[in-house]
Amino acid sequence: MAMDVLRDAKALERAGRSIIHLELGEPGVAAPRRVREAAAESLRDGSIGYGEALGDAPLRARIARHYGERYGVDVTPDRVIVTTGSSGGFLLAFLAAFDPGARIAVTAPGYPAYANILSALGLEPVLLDVGEETRFAPTAAMLEAAHRARKLHGALFMSPANPTGAMIARDELARICAFCDEAEIILVSDEIYHGLEYEMRAETALRFSQRALVINSFSKYYAMTGWRLGWLVAPAELMRPLERLQQSLAICAPTLSQRAALAAFDAGDELEANRAAYARNRALLLDRLPKLGLDNFAPPDGAFYIYADISRFTDDSIGFCRRMLHEAGVATTPGLDFDPRRGAKTLRLSYAGPEADVREGVARLEAWLRR
Amino acid sequence: MAMDVLRDAKALERAGRSIIHLELGEPGVAAPRRVREAAAESLRDGSIGYGEALGDAPLRARIARHYGERYGVDVTPDRVIVTTGSSGGFLLAFLAAFDPGARIAVTAPGYPAYANILSALGLEPVLLDVGEETRFAPTAAMLEAAHRARKLHGALFMSPANPTGAMIARDELARICAFCDEAEIILVSDEIYHGLEYEMRAETALRFSQRALVINSFSKYYAMTGWRLGWLVAPAELMRPLERLQQSLAICAPTLSQRAALAAFDAGDELEANRAAYARNRALLLDRLPKLGLDNFAPPDGAFYIYADISRFTDDSIGFCRRMLHEAGVATTPGLDFDPRRGAKTLRLSYAGPEADVREGVARLEAWLRR
Repeated sequence: MAMDVLRDAKALERAGRSIIHLELGEPGVAAPRRVREAAAESLRDGSIGYGEALGDAPLRARIARHYGERYGVDVTPDRVIVTTGSSGGFLLAFLAAFDPGARIAVTAPGYPAYANILSALGLEPVLLDVGEETRFAPTAAMLEAAHRARKLHGALFMSPANPTGAMIARDELARICAFCDEAEIILVSDEIYHGLEYEMRAETALRFSQRALVINSFSKYYAMTGWRLGWLVAPAELMRPLERLQQSLAICAPTLSQRAALAAFDAGDELEANRAAYARNRALLLDRLPKLGLDNFAPPDGAFYIYADISRFTDDSIGFCRRMLHEAGVATTPGLDFDPRRGAKTLRLSYAGPEADVREGVARLEAWLRR
Repeated sequence: MAMDVLRDAKALERAGRSIIHLELGEPGVAAPRRVREAAAESLRDGSIGYGEALGDAPLRARIARHYGERYGVDVTPDRVIVTTGSSGGFLLAFLAAFDPGARIAVTAPGYPAYANILSALGLEPVLLDVGEETRFAPTAAMLEAAHRARKLHGALFMSPANPTGAMIARDELARICAFCDEAEIILVSDEIYHGLEYEMRAETALRFSQRALVINSFSKYYAMTGWRLGWLVAPAELMRPLERLQQSLAICAPTLSQRAALAAFDAGDELEANRAAYARNRALLLDRLPKLGLDNFAPPDGAFYIYADISRFTDDSIGFCRRMLHEAGVATTPGLDFDPRRGAKTLRLSYAGPEADVREGVARLEAWLRR
């Protein structure tokens, strides 16, 4: 549905309408200058051939070092595999870690591709409803209850989360890791929005579990969406199966992107400036949205989303978002994309775009909701 | 095993040994100058964001036009999906076209990733042995016999083929397409080596079937391996499922590679010069190998491989290739990689590298085999 909104929005733009994009899950800024310079340099060298299946050695080493610098957690390069976006990481992780028919807990609301990928691979997503009671985050208790009802083989959680922005608190993440290890549930921790936090620091599952698989990407904090590059940190015993899968399923992640991404870790200034811009967008929305009647949303701890309750306006989020797009010229994503059971009463706003756009979007929303 | 050879070869090189690489399945040349210039230009524009799941519209249109220009076959852009290498195309094609447990005919010898991907996705590869009797190509009669023995749901053939170089003749391809359509077997035609032919022109399955899926890539003829870009042409009714799968499994193919690849179609001079270099390498091998006792190989119609019988020297291709690497400093790929039943008596030589390397490789082989 997010893609249908995008298509509608583009059609309206082609017809000459001005559309404010609050539906996009990608940074409005370009990749850091250093990254683009590194790519240009690599292009001049000429050869952009196949790389090793697990990824270029310097990049794997740099990613491993990042865990020491960012979290104070020790990760060796031989546990890192460079993937074609986090998408490529999911595919490898699921195929390496789970047998056909395995039951994997995911949250609702949650990232819709999770259930799609799991289903396409013959795995069963098990939806855990999260809401205000737990600040929209999954808990160890929730996982335990689901596991007791019927055996789970895996859990796939994201913190900060799409679409809510909600984070799993550090202590709760420790409890989730401990329970997963004890119950032999394989935890896949999607940390793609790490670095984009505004209230508390995100913690990696690698601090609490040696068995968890961690997925990350250069798309969000590092603003490199179209470069299709991510990584996976896995337990040592999964590395050989992961390498074989990568050889067959992808050969290797894009070579130019790998060389460029090495420079992303030196682009801290630019990346922190991006984050400051998101923080200003977020502050604006937290100030203005309640005044428009959008005063009930999940805790926007991180990422660049606000997941708002729109039940006072509608119980048809798809129709509501469509009218908003056509009448107000503001594109957002209906909650049904993220939560099949309760998403008719929610929508997701992204504040990843330029500040002027967010400001204009709020003004348009205000005028439209007032009518 | 190819990857183990590569690793051994690299370890020897790090230790100071000179190694001639006749094991690599990738062009020794860089991507065409125009392609690299287009990429550099796109980098200067700055924004390398997500693209549409089916691919950038100009590239899809250009690929569609290519079918008219190259084959005189009419393909509309809406049947083209741009993929993350041919690897990404396989994944989408198999998931969209086949149900779990489907039986897919592939050849032995054949590309080892086929069986690996099929198995990883819960599909069953059915090996059809090909040999001298049919010039190492699959035939409609062979397919019919296998289908009669036990129902097939798909067939996955490559022409020109890896590892043999053998091509399916035009009339036989027509018969294969007709039989598949009649028997409701979905044909996936891997045309990744099209453009690299030396004896006859390769024909596309799209000429003979409206139901076939065609896989292609910018990696081989267009010399863009590390760019991870390919395409898939599919029947109209599969496009929506393919789009959804792409959205969930990959989001989109690498954006920079897509923009650059548009220029690949204007790089004919450079690409034909590459092909002429392969042709010289091939001629050298066809002249010299028989004099070394390697006089029995599959018809090297296309691609950049020679698949040679080594039964007069060994019945252990892995040991033979390892000794050749360590003693002669020449890396090749043991046939067991491509044919689990008969590959102990074969090996694959690639002539995709520089002419000087191929010449030196032959000289070393000559000295080594004489001992």
